[in-house]
Amino acid sequence: MSNAQFDKLAILGIGLLGSSIAHAVNAYGGADRVAVWDISSDVRERAARVLSAEVAETAEAAVRDANCVILCTPVGVFGEVAELIKDALMPGAILTDVGSVKVTAARDMAAHCPSDVYLIPGHPIAGTEKSGPEAGFASLFQGSWHILTPLKKGDEAYDDAVERLTDFWKGIGARVETMDPDRHDRVLAITSHLPHLIAYNIVSTAYDMESVEQGEVVKYSAGGFRDFTRIAASDPTMWRDVFLNNKDAVLETLGRFSEDLAALQRAIRWGDGETLMKEFSRARGIREAIIDAGLDTAEADFGRRHIDPSSDK
Amino acid sequence: MSNAQFDKLAILGIGLLGSSIAHAVNAYGGADRVAVWDISSDVRERAARVLSAEVAETAEAAVRDANCVILCTPVGVFGEVAELIKDALMPGAILTDVGSVKVTAARDMAAHCPSDVYLIPGHPIAGTEKSGPEAGFASLFQGSWHILTPLKKGDEAYDDAVERLTDFWKGIGARVETMDPDRHDRVLAITSHLPHLIAYNIVSTAYDMESVEQGEVVKYSAGGFRDFTRIAASDPTMWRDVFLNNKDAVLETLGRFSEDLAALQRAIRWGDGETLMKEFSRARGIREAIIDAGLDTAEADFGRRHIDPSSDK
Repeated sequence: MSNAQFDKLAILGIGLLGSSIAHAVNAYGGADRVAVWDISSDVRERAARVLSAEVAETAEAAVRDANCVILCTPVGVFGEVAELIKDALMPGAILTDVGSVKVTAARDMAAHCPSDVYLIPGHPIAGTEKSGPEAGFASLFQGSWHILTPLKKGDEAYDDAVERLTDFWKGIGARVETMDPDRHDRVLAITSHLPHLIAYNIVSTAYDMESVEQGEVVKYSAGGFRDFTRIAASDPTMWRDVFLNNKDAVLETLGRFSEDLAALQRAIRWGDGETLMKEFSRARGIREAIIDAGLDTAEADFGRRHIDPSSDK
Repeated sequence: MSNAQFDKLAILGIGLLGSSIAHAVNAYGGADRVAVWDISSDVRERAARVLSAEVAETAEAAVRDANCVILCTPVGVFGEVAELIKDALMPGAILTDVGSVKVTAARDMAAHCPSDVYLIPGHPIAGTEKSGPEAGFASLFQGSWHILTPLKKGDEAYDDAVERLTDFWKGIGARVETMDPDRHDRVLAITSHLPHLIAYNIVSTAYDMESVEQGEVVKYSAGGFRDFTRIAASDPTMWRDVFLNNKDAVLETLGRFSEDLAALQRAIRWGDGETLMKEFSRARGIREAIIDAGLDTAEADFGRRHIDPSSDK
């Protein structure tokens, strides 16, 4: 007898996260069977080569008899995928996801989720800049945070489902926290969405200058720029959907960022070294808090957990 | 008999770079004797503990009889330091530096440099976010670029001095390139100065939100934010001086960045997924060029060459 949380787990969308969950379950347990599906037949074929999981031909076949279904597609298609599977979902199953935004994700899934299925949106704060089934690896979630945003309170059966899902994520190495979807989207706007937008933007700015600078942007990228290119190498489709689905929080955070940047720009223009010094100095405080929390070590480093330069090309 | 380029090397300013040069010379050669000096007596004492080099009590004592003098202080005090040592510099010596800006650095050193001393400004594209003599290590320059910005052309003795300095940097592991100081400052504005300014700014923006978000900014920093905090942990004094001394190129580059960001902001506000997708996708091209150039491997990674979390606190 197995002590897995689920007899059958279905993973829809086989990118970095979907593939990593399948690997993690093989390595650490959590489900007796894993079925995966992707809308792209090319991705399904590649998944069949790298995963020891059942690769289903249709989303419905993947979710049939599954006690837990995890949406790992870009968040922009959650509604369509939920509609595709709604009749195949087993009563009492858990429907969850790994989307980077939670308010619209919850709304889009809820629109098609049968009432006898437990909808519990979630978001693992884990990733690398790599994409595709080949990028997945079992230890991705070890020591990372997983945020669940439960939609119901005081419903015993629902609470039990949340507990089972919590145990599943803990089993594959994550630390689990619950949060309100709206709060999730505001917190992640500053800790993740804005940093990615800024990284994309600085690379874009450099791109327009690069022809002028004859390849020197690449050559001397070790001065700081290179770190931004790594973040900006993340999946464009995923991030387009994040920005379109967390518009308000991102625009609010971006507004603050631009105000602060204007102040630094003014300090540079007027040679105000005191203001620059004050702003630059306080950045170290947050850095120390992150180090103290054990959240930046060589192993925990974003995008550095799994280093395989050959897969980058 | 030694095949070192210099009998005596003097290093003024013992931070990450000064200390790393001293370690590198011990490890790989380049000078028979190394003398170091820092304006802070505390730093001099700490340097005496971590470096096997002669720690001089005064700048003049350090540079006396030195064939090569490297300024490793913040660029804002290059003029003062050059004035301090001008009478102690040996005829025929090389005066160089490691400053991140080159036009004002060259100007400030030239104002006090005797005519029988070869002034050859330089800039190693290497570093970590750590500061102080304890942060230095011998292999920092291995495989990194070192830019020299010679100030004279067609002067045989000067060219010989440039060659000797080139050999010195190659000897401790660097790849050497020459460039016009003005071009250097424009190229570095996008590859290094703007990335640091943006990193400082995003951390600053988060700092103001953090009290509101109850520590969640730190907790969920793995979503991208953490990488910015590492860059923003760099020495505030050094970076203040960089921005004050490369004002025009930084403001020009920042202007382009802000225009581009406004376009992304508009695309988010109006739900223009096509524009977001287009901008995000082209970022991958530069990333691939950096990987292809062998400039991003685990070893070469900025700030990751020397991992010692304990020294971060």
